[in-house]
Amino acid sequence: MEELDVRSAAAAAREAAAAMAQLGTFAKNSILVKMADEIHRDRDYILQENAADVEQARAAGRPESLIDRLRLDPARIEQIAQGCLDVAALPDPVGETVHGEMRPNGLQIIKRRVPIGVIGIIYESRPNVTADAASLCIKSGNSVVLKGGSDAVRSNLAIAEAMVRGGEAAGMPVGALSMIGDVSREATTEMMKMNGLIDVLIPRGGSGLIQTVVQNATVPVIETGTGNCHIFVDKTAHLDMAVDIVVNAKTSRPGVCNAAESLLVHKDIAKDFLPVVFDALTNAGVEIRGCELCQRYGAKPATEDDMAREYLDLIISVKVVDGIDEAIDHINRYGTGHSEAIITDSYTNSRRFQDEVDAAAVYVNASTRFTDGFEFGFGAEIGISTQRLHARGPLGLADLTTMKYLIEGNGQVR
Amino acid sequence: MEELDVRSAAAAAREAAAAMAQLGTFAKNSILVKMADEIHRDRDYILQENAADVEQARAAGRPESLIDRLRLDPARIEQIAQGCLDVAALPDPVGETVHGEMRPNGLQIIKRRVPIGVIGIIYESRPNVTADAASLCIKSGNSVVLKGGSDAVRSNLAIAEAMVRGGEAAGMPVGALSMIGDVSREATTEMMKMNGLIDVLIPRGGSGLIQTVVQNATVPVIETGTGNCHIFVDKTAHLDMAVDIVVNAKTSRPGVCNAAESLLVHKDIAKDFLPVVFDALTNAGVEIRGCELCQRYGAKPATEDDMAREYLDLIISVKVVDGIDEAIDHINRYGTGHSEAIITDSYTNSRRFQDEVDAAAVYVNASTRFTDGFEFGFGAEIGISTQRLHARGPLGLADLTTMKYLIEGNGQVR
Repeated sequence: MEELDVRSAAAAAREAAAAMAQLGTFAKNSILVKMADEIHRDRDYILQENAADVEQARAAGRPESLIDRLRLDPARIEQIAQGCLDVAALPDPVGETVHGEMRPNGLQIIKRRVPIGVIGIIYESRPNVTADAASLCIKSGNSVVLKGGSDAVRSNLAIAEAMVRGGEAAGMPVGALSMIGDVSREATTEMMKMNGLIDVLIPRGGSGLIQTVVQNATVPVIETGTGNCHIFVDKTAHLDMAVDIVVNAKTSRPGVCNAAESLLVHKDIAKDFLPVVFDALTNAGVEIRGCELCQRYGAKPATEDDMAREYLDLIISVKVVDGIDEAIDHINRYGTGHSEAIITDSYTNSRRFQDEVDAAAVYVNASTRFTDGFEFGFGAEIGISTQRLHARGPLGLADLTTMKYLIEGNGQVR
Repeated sequence: MEELDVRSAAAAAREAAAAMAQLGTFAKNSILVKMADEIHRDRDYILQENAADVEQARAAGRPESLIDRLRLDPARIEQIAQGCLDVAALPDPVGETVHGEMRPNGLQIIKRRVPIGVIGIIYESRPNVTADAASLCIKSGNSVVLKGGSDAVRSNLAIAEAMVRGGEAAGMPVGALSMIGDVSREATTEMMKMNGLIDVLIPRGGSGLIQTVVQNATVPVIETGTGNCHIFVDKTAHLDMAVDIVVNAKTSRPGVCNAAESLLVHKDIAKDFLPVVFDALTNAGVEIRGCELCQRYGAKPATEDDMAREYLDLIISVKVVDGIDEAIDHINRYGTGHSEAIITDSYTNSRRFQDEVDAAAVYVNASTRFTDGFEFGFGAEIGISTQRLHARGPLGLADLTTMKYLIEGNGQVR
């Protein structure tokens, strides 16, 4: 695969965008199927390149968690290929008429869903993102420029090479998918300023990466990810349900953004609930950092900083609150606008919580872990937006599109 | 009115946003009606402050076009007040359920339209923008921070003062509307970096202002405005209709972004059409800059630069093209993605043009001048987006909102 510099890749993607936008659903699905074939066919080569990346990451002393995200095996490669097929099976968002009307002057106006154009994805060292992100962009009729982390460069290039070969064999316009070989910081910075060539940037990764992109990009950004998610256990909560939900939200996958990071407990039930939930959390290996009252039940002391932390680990902060007002205020102050839950049997409080908490997803009596494109029925997701513009919450295929007004007249002037 | 610095104004707006978002439609309408009352009541004071602005602008040697946009008279003040009433009469976008479903696991998910939060508007020297923009933000449940041009500072403060007094008397949360008194560049720069306090910036004005905001803001921006709009007259066009539309699109209001700036003519009809349309344009006072063939019919020579220009004036560039392919390529190359029109009687070409031209609004047999919130039936607009993210084309009230997922369960865990 020819290694492209950022500007050439973006220019080629821009060039290909018009043809990509005209591809029908069948053509796009054929491209995705062929991409899956080629990933499968190249599995040994991909594994070999990945082994080289893993070896180098190990030599560079990277943490085990990074190496775990980086490492591929035959099963994971099959999952990556299957992911392309799954995206092929999703409904095509492009072409939908989202609104239409005849104006009094006889102009027919329709609002049609169309591809955005060129999407840039900046991510870290998870090679599966390469295929996940690219296939969603292709299915929604966009060109895509991928820039992965330096630790995964050989794995990413190997996967992208298979996808490009397969895609082009099935009619994908040349340049519609490219992987930047230059993994320098300068290349990332350049990519962030490519107004006119790249229409939107989606950073995927830790908060450091996301903040760097938000602070430096002049290209519009969809901010994803950071989740300081709370669960508020109200005084009317069914306590068994509350324990189950807290443990699930904290421990089922602590490293993801929809995991709970903080627990708020109504003071009237603290005496009954704290010992039980602390017991369950401790048994699940969770470290508890809490307020003064919590400390009486065995929590370590929590600082102000703990309240704002996204641990992404088996740690939870806990605070006893006076009631729903304090809970809502606390969440709106410390939350990141991702996913927030109340456990309650009060109808009034369930409504107040959903109305007044400012977040992408607000739950009553369910785990925050459901904030996810698959769980929401989108079939796949490219991230979870924590910003307010364009899209908020799990980003599905439709969120990779924009609109176009089509107006038909018979000579109208104004 | 207390003169606020940027940070205090934005912090107050953020503080007020939660209460703004909870206001019902009746409460917001009452606020807008009372604002209109107070603008009407303060008309003499507003005129006096405006006269001072006009005098100072004149003393500073500002161009007549700026002074024209700056100057208010009693009728314009009544229009401004009426504008608030018109916005009160529009349907409230907030609270709409845009989607909802029951998931297989029993979770009910609904997607609700909610206010964005805090909207920053940066504009130039048209004091009417103060009331137009503020009333749309208020109606959509947002706090708003306004920063107008230095030439209009006294007019803007006078209008905002009336609106704040009226709004607060009708229950608007304190801080929900503020006008920055500090008109320095530093204040504008500071406003562009207020992530966390301001959720979106909408620059309204010339392309210099817009580019400055796009290049420097870390807060998300909705880019509005620049329109290098084309009309392509195909060989099957009804030539009378084509002349009417070209003259209308160029001359009915040459200073606005949906005015035509460039005319493309199919070579097969150039001989018949150019003399007629040039005659009509010349009679309407339009200067014509064209390709070599056009020059035979009296056009001045056009440079490459002319093809990319948004004149906003009685000037038009003209080019004879080989057919629809060249027309589409030319438009996608030189256009700004605003409004583009084909005049044709070919069904095939009408479809191709609408499918392949990449713009917010693509017309068949109608004037580009219809790209406008009122003409599209939105009742009002806060600008016309030429970017792809969030909203494209005329921005109505719904475009000043975002979404929130509300999920209700009975103990679901994952």
